[in-house]
Amino acid sequence: MESFSVKTSRREQMVDITSQVREIVSSKGMGKGMVTVFVPHTTAAVTINEGADPSVQHDLLAGLAELVPHRTPYYQHSEGNSDAHIKASLLGSTVNVLVDGGRLILGTWQAIFFCEFDGPRTRQIHVYVTN
Amino acid sequence: MESFSVKTSRREQMVDITSQVREIVSSKGMGKGMVTVFVPHTTAAVTINEGADPSVQHDLLAGLAELVPHRTPYYQHSEGNSDAHIKASLLGSTVNVLVDGGRLILGTWQAIFFCEFDGPRTRQIHVYVTN
Amino acid sequence: MESFSVKTSRREQMVDITSQVREIVSSKGMGKGMVTVFVPHTTAAVTINEGADPSVQHDLLAGLAELVPHRTPYYQHSEGNSDAHIKASLLGSTVNVLVDGGRLILGTWQAIFFCEFDGPRTRQIHVYVTN
Repeated sequence: MESFSVKTSRREQMVDITSQVREIVSSKGMGKGMVTVFVPHTTAAVTINEGADPSVQHDLLAGLAELVPHRTPYYQHSEGNSDAHIKASLLGSTVNVLVDGGRLILGTWQAIFFCEFDGPRTRQIHVYVTN
Repeated sequence: MESFSVKTSRREQMVDITSQVREIVSSKGMGKGMVTVFVPHTTAAVTINEGADPSVQHDLLAGLAELVPHRTPYYQHSEGNSDAHIKASLLGSTVNVLVDGGRLILGTWQAIFFCEFDGPRTRQIHVYVTN
Repeated sequence: MESFSVKTSRREQMVDITSQVREIVSSKGMGKGMVTVFVPHTTAAVTINEGADPSVQHDLLAGLAELVPHRTPYYQHSEGNSDAHIKASLLGSTVNVLVDGGRLILGTWQAIFFCEFDGPRTRQIHVYVTN
């Protein structure tokens, strides 16, 4: 298991972590297998989506904000970040990416994104390689 | 593969299953690797979220109920549990957790939750360990 | 890693791919382990849900369409498929299914579905087997 950290600068933010994951796979001299990315936080997530056009990140965060309001009369959690907890479960804390010939097998437009929903914070990301 | 069951008492309920998963990892004498938790049901899910403050579970279930109404004019499935099927796919049927030094590598606030969306029922949970 | 393709015929569609995944597991002579299904696209997903009654697929797609509108004033992505990107992250690009005695360990009602959100297109699906 390898870990690295990401520093976010806004409350809600997607950070492309593909190159960090690629570097870990490369440093292991891994030929083929699977890499699992795990986020050990409850107000953040990891997802795979389009990395080419930043407007997709905008629309994903805006769509989630529309779906899950920041404040509602029915939230009971006192920290004011219930929306971030809900978004964390909707997107999930883990993704798997396949590896072949030493390379991440991602589609043309795919990138791996750390998703911050209650920043800015410094966050950890764990990466585990399975042969 | 190991399995255990959970008995739910309400239609919608989150049940902390971290200790059952931890016990299985421990009984395998597993040093490092990955554990996969799988829910073999289509109106239930598994997620990782905050285990410390029960109000987070309340807000997650309330937020999902707001997002996905129990009854709508456009549902066609006759069993009246289409909301539960939708929530099951939104949260997902599987999570991966890393293991190191024989311990589940969860963040400070993270717990593994079985999510019931169409209870009360007795449900199965499968756990698989990968080295 | 094995791959196969799926041809979709509508903008939004769920395609049951359980038999293709089962065939790959079978062709590997795999006794026990885990199979990972990965979708290398950013406007499609993979999920596990009920395979018996097609009205569940209808309700899942209708519920998602209600949750995530096709067009909104705040989407910035110019391709008009931001809803598909959002749904892709909500459902996710990967599922894990356990294998025992050479068989996929799915619940009675579970099937593995490729989810098209921006079709019709020809799509790829990758399958990876871990022992």
